[in-house]
Amino acid sequence: MSSDIAENPAGLIPAEYAFLPIARIHSCFTEKFGIPRQPGLAGSATASIEMLPPFDRREMFRGLEKFSHIWIHFLFHQAVTEGWRPTVRPPWLGGQKRVGVFASRSPHRPNFIGLSVVRLVGIRTEGKKIFLDIAGIDILDQTPVFDIKPYLPYSDGVAEATSGYSRQAQTQMQVTFSVEAEAACAAYQLETGRNLQGLISEILRQDPRPASQRAGEREHGMLLWDVNIRWQTSSGGVLVLSCEQLKAR
Amino acid sequence: MSSDIAENPAGLIPAEYAFLPIARIHSCFTEKFGIPRQPGLAGSATASIEMLPPFDRREMFRGLEKFSHIWIHFLFHQAVTEGWRPTVRPPWLGGQKRVGVFASRSPHRPNFIGLSVVRLVGIRTEGKKIFLDIAGIDILDQTPVFDIKPYLPYSDGVAEATSGYSRQAQTQMQVTFSVEAEAACAAYQLETGRNLQGLISEILRQDPRPASQRAGEREHGMLLWDVNIRWQTSSGGVLVLSCEQLKAR
Repeated sequence: MSSDIAENPAGLIPAEYAFLPIARIHSCFTEKFGIPRQPGLAGSATASIEMLPPFDRREMFRGLEKFSHIWIHFLFHQAVTEGWRPTVRPPWLGGQKRVGVFASRSPHRPNFIGLSVVRLVGIRTEGKKIFLDIAGIDILDQTPVFDIKPYLPYSDGVAEATSGYSRQAQTQMQVTFSVEAEAACAAYQLETGRNLQGLISEILRQDPRPASQRAGEREHGMLLWDVNIRWQTSSGGVLVLSCEQLKAR
Repeated sequence: MSSDIAENPAGLIPAEYAFLPIARIHSCFTEKFGIPRQPGLAGSATASIEMLPPFDRREMFRGLEKFSHIWIHFLFHQAVTEGWRPTVRPPWLGGQKRVGVFASRSPHRPNFIGLSVVRLVGIRTEGKKIFLDIAGIDILDQTPVFDIKPYLPYSDGVAEATSGYSRQAQTQMQVTFSVEAEAACAAYQLETGRNLQGLISEILRQDPRPASQRAGEREHGMLLWDVNIRWQTSSGGVLVLSCEQLKAR
């Protein structure tokens, strides 16, 4: 952490602060489409946090295993080049109504800071590297991380908090698989240990399509890890057509 | 947000990112001593967030008033010069046992990023300036803010989260006031509208003394706004001796 010498015209606060990435995320979400809109919605969405030196000493995590959940402060790195705007159209308002950027959790926000609570599955040492295994994530692959904190139920879980907009749950879609897609998932799980079919179900039942693409029957695609998923939507239901693993380059 | 050209040796992540302060806090906590260890512990601890240009446009907050609570991402600015260490001795372990910095909410952490959920009392325009009035804070006066987000109960409130260390509540001290102290609080509230006596009670009943200073009867002091508070502790009880407003300089 260093701070610029220049002063903000409004007062004594430096004009900017330099933040160092302490870690990066390895996630199943290799592209934005399909990422759950909040963490915890897809329990099979697993990932690992790779600590970067000098933030990769085992003692820095002593006691963290006693916590079931952690906060991740991260950068919405794909949003940086796209910029931010004073108002946004959040998906939970059907993508129509505009709210202020600070009334949203949009990635397109000043400083592009993301905040997610995820389940801590374990802390793993691999050679000299330290990884935190996590689940229930909504974070893109290769995301830079700025901080990791334990989730404190007694202060972070605000029982009396109310929200005007965000819905607890939306209508869930029925997800079915073609014979080919189901077989491909089973083969992939055998090879990698990853519960691909479970993850696809969790993602698609929440209908990740933007509101503008929801009319009529259409074919859609998304990438999870290195697997290209194709599916078709009709009234209230999703049919997963194929799950094709990309060829190694 | 801009990013450095240099690359982290570990991969494709830039070595650092520049974050702009979007706001600063005006808080009753003009010094560190006495600040509650987590937000929400002192409901009378009110503050305001002064938005800095260009993050002070009214439309950026449209819809935020529908949320009862907000997240503040801020800088532990007084900790920056003190630095950080791989392990810390958190107060909830009696200041004796060491845990990893990432297993704590210590201010002395990489990037010095703080995270607090506070109650949103209102959004106020004063001339060209925008202020968010907040309550239940644990944040130092003049703290730089990097982001403000709505608190989403359905994803931020993790009902099944468990924590190994943090205690829901600790033994609470009985707080009484001397006749002089009580009169001084009443006069201050009449002048400023601030519930000083309530705030002192909320802070002192949680016993803000570091574990190392808890033996024996001692006199202590802290500053709230511009008032110097003196109190004495004996077994299980606190007596507030005086509340003296500092002379304007």
